[in-house]
Amino acid sequence: MYAFTTEIIGALAGVLTTIAFLPQVLRTWQTRSAGDISFAWLGTFVAGLMLWFIYGVLIVSWPVIVANSVTIALVLTILGLKISEHRGLARAQVKEVG
Amino acid sequence: MYAFTTEIIGALAGVLTTIAFLPQVLRTWQTRSAGDISFAWLGTFVAGLMLWFIYGVLIVSWPVIVANSVTIALVLTILGLKISEHRGLARAQVKEVG
Repeated sequence: MYAFTTEIIGALAGVLTTIAFLPQVLRTWQTRSAGDISFAWLGTFVAGLMLWFIYGVLIVSWPVIVANSVTIALVLTILGLKISEHRGLARAQVKEVG
Repeated sequence: MYAFTTEIIGALAGVLTTIAFLPQVLRTWQTRSAGDISFAWLGTFVAGLMLWFIYGVLIVSWPVIVANSVTIALVLTILGLKISEHRGLARAQVKEVG
């Protein structure tokens, strides 16, 4: 029962911090623009999340594992949008020059 | 040794995700402006962080405890700036009306 309560608290924590992150992802998805989000930030954040994930596996904490998996997926979505935007811009510039 | 490596990975994870959050705090601190940051976001995020903190205490995970303490302090700094900004605006409006 005690361990169950602990996991519930951890799960709720994961839900809240993930929800707090959702507006950013939705905004990037809707505007299809991630120009204001730096690669440095994305890289640092995703590296940190991956280490949290590994840490969660090592200490066998489901809330840490699941919450970080979801956030990693969301951040990679932003990263994907940013890369495709970057390529689009590069193509547009090539066309202009050509 | 195994447990030590685990804690190092957790500590590094905490350092990286906290570093990723610093630019936002520095920006808010320098511009003294938190108008674009919603109370809803701050409330959800800080509630989530506090639950992560409690979860960290329950599972006795130092990385989870320390990383979330630092981030809570940073988010409360933003919240403090936002509240003082809010009050300043309210005073300015009273002056305008008066």
